[in-house]
Amino acid sequence: MAGEFELISKYFANQKLKRNDVALSQGDDCALLLSPAGSQIAVSTDSLVAGTHFLQSADPKWVGHKALASNISDLAAMGAEPAWVSMAISLPKPDEKWLQQFCEGFFPLADAHNLQLIGGDTTRGPLSITLTVHGFIPQGEALLRSGAREGDKILVSGQLGDSHAGLEVILEPHKRLLAHAATLEARHYCAESRIRLGMMLRGKASSCIDISDGLVSDIQHIMHRSKVGARLALDKLPVSQELIEYCLDKETAQQYALKSGEEYELCFTLPQHLLESVQQQAAELGILLTEVGEIIESDTLQLLRNNQLIEKDVAGFDHFRT
Amino acid sequence: MAGEFELISKYFANQKLKRNDVALSQGDDCALLLSPAGSQIAVSTDSLVAGTHFLQSADPKWVGHKALASNISDLAAMGAEPAWVSMAISLPKPDEKWLQQFCEGFFPLADAHNLQLIGGDTTRGPLSITLTVHGFIPQGEALLRSGAREGDKILVSGQLGDSHAGLEVILEPHKRLLAHAATLEARHYCAESRIRLGMMLRGKASSCIDISDGLVSDIQHIMHRSKVGARLALDKLPVSQELIEYCLDKETAQQYALKSGEEYELCFTLPQHLLESVQQQAAELGILLTEVGEIIESDTLQLLRNNQLIEKDVAGFDHFRT
Repeated sequence: MAGEFELISKYFANQKLKRNDVALSQGDDCALLLSPAGSQIAVSTDSLVAGTHFLQSADPKWVGHKALASNISDLAAMGAEPAWVSMAISLPKPDEKWLQQFCEGFFPLADAHNLQLIGGDTTRGPLSITLTVHGFIPQGEALLRSGAREGDKILVSGQLGDSHAGLEVILEPHKRLLAHAATLEARHYCAESRIRLGMMLRGKASSCIDISDGLVSDIQHIMHRSKVGARLALDKLPVSQELIEYCLDKETAQQYALKSGEEYELCFTLPQHLLESVQQQAAELGILLTEVGEIIESDTLQLLRNNQLIEKDVAGFDHFRT
Repeated sequence: MAGEFELISKYFANQKLKRNDVALSQGDDCALLLSPAGSQIAVSTDSLVAGTHFLQSADPKWVGHKALASNISDLAAMGAEPAWVSMAISLPKPDEKWLQQFCEGFFPLADAHNLQLIGGDTTRGPLSITLTVHGFIPQGEALLRSGAREGDKILVSGQLGDSHAGLEVILEPHKRLLAHAATLEARHYCAESRIRLGMMLRGKASSCIDISDGLVSDIQHIMHRSKVGARLALDKLPVSQELIEYCLDKETAQQYALKSGEEYELCFTLPQHLLESVQQQAAELGILLTEVGEIIESDTLQLLRNNQLIEKDVAGFDHFRT
């Protein structure tokens, strides 16, 4: 058994060393790394477990992409520049075909972000992937969840809701018959990472988070850490044309946008006077930004539609207070 | 589900912040860390999967200890000083009793090494634990596998073989009747970490590895990376009195010592002129060191007993060459 798994480790070890801050990557007891002077290291760990986060039958390429994208997204939310990643992968058997396809999803994304695989562990067991990503941020410039102030505008990147629709398609096979089902399924697995946006927002955004549990849930993390409330305009939530056609109407699509998890878009707050310049810089990066609400003093989460208050305090908020 | 698992995350988040190089540990998208100027960061990732590395029914306290000890051991083998650890834990259900006992094994060991939990992920899935540990080493002082030279002496810390006997007791219940079965089982789970020894060996040992797959296997990693051979004296392998009584004779015990994995003792090479001073410093640390062989020019792994060559080239070595 060990022999087979060693081969697999070598599969991963074949990656070229691309960064000069990696003195040693694989082949010894530890990797040896050097972080740049004046920078903080941002570190995040995430697991993807078959049966919980993806189906055993999911396209391995998508799983490889998603595993890394969900981790990179945490770096983006802090404004960090990706540097190193370690990978623990557990497989029921050493399935080289599965691994090869997994790598086809994983490494192009890693390369695109100049992210070096620095080692890890390959074990026999139920299918799961755990990544620990490391990135750099100039000291004191990290985007935290805790800086939102009354009057700040709430913005999101991209379009929301597709990931939730894609998950529906995966879990409820009859929904494959709905419009754009395959496209939405692919978007569930293949979200983009907003690294360039996060780095651009350093020193500008007053708070930031990546949307992994759903906007309505993640904005509450900002509220909790910043000790503020928020007002979201449901009718302003950006949704794709495909999602509208899948849902049959825009209002339903925006409900999806409110709760859709694993989007990996950024939700951030911005003092009003920075709105225009940030919008312009995002446009130069080719990233859509949409103002979807504002920070309020009260500690409630309010929902508006067409300027009408339709929800005074979204349930669930107190849960995070305790 | 998320709610329950969030509670568990908070269980881990309750740990006090003990290090001033951790600007932010939990509660945001990433931890924020600062590594000391002039130091390299040593990073290692290891998974423990139920059914592969421990029995589902194993004492959670032992699992917590073992998960961390096996990771710390990789830092020890590099001569690194432990600093930070992130943890991904996957559980079939949010079993607080199991977790509490797990923590009773994990945190005392972390605290003993001034190791700060900096975050991680708690997910629903088959029981497994993946840790990524980080430690510091003054630049250029890491103990590698690659520096062993002809004539260097091979030393091991502690006593070997108990872990293998303990594993037998776990997997073959009738062996519970043998002498010291319970003691040896406990030793399988509760190995010590040789951090102080690793740090003491900086600038002295020409190569170093922790014994995780068994001495006969791990010495070959040193041989491979250093491009040398090795001669081990079977009759010199240090074994415990308990193991001798379990095996009924010392010779059998020493066979266990040769192949016993998950020992987490260090195996290292030392130029002869440093032997006396290193032995003395180890004695001051209360650590037994035993000279068990020497590095030879030929690329073979030879075994001696009572100065007689009993094995000219241990099978399996070629495997690592390819």
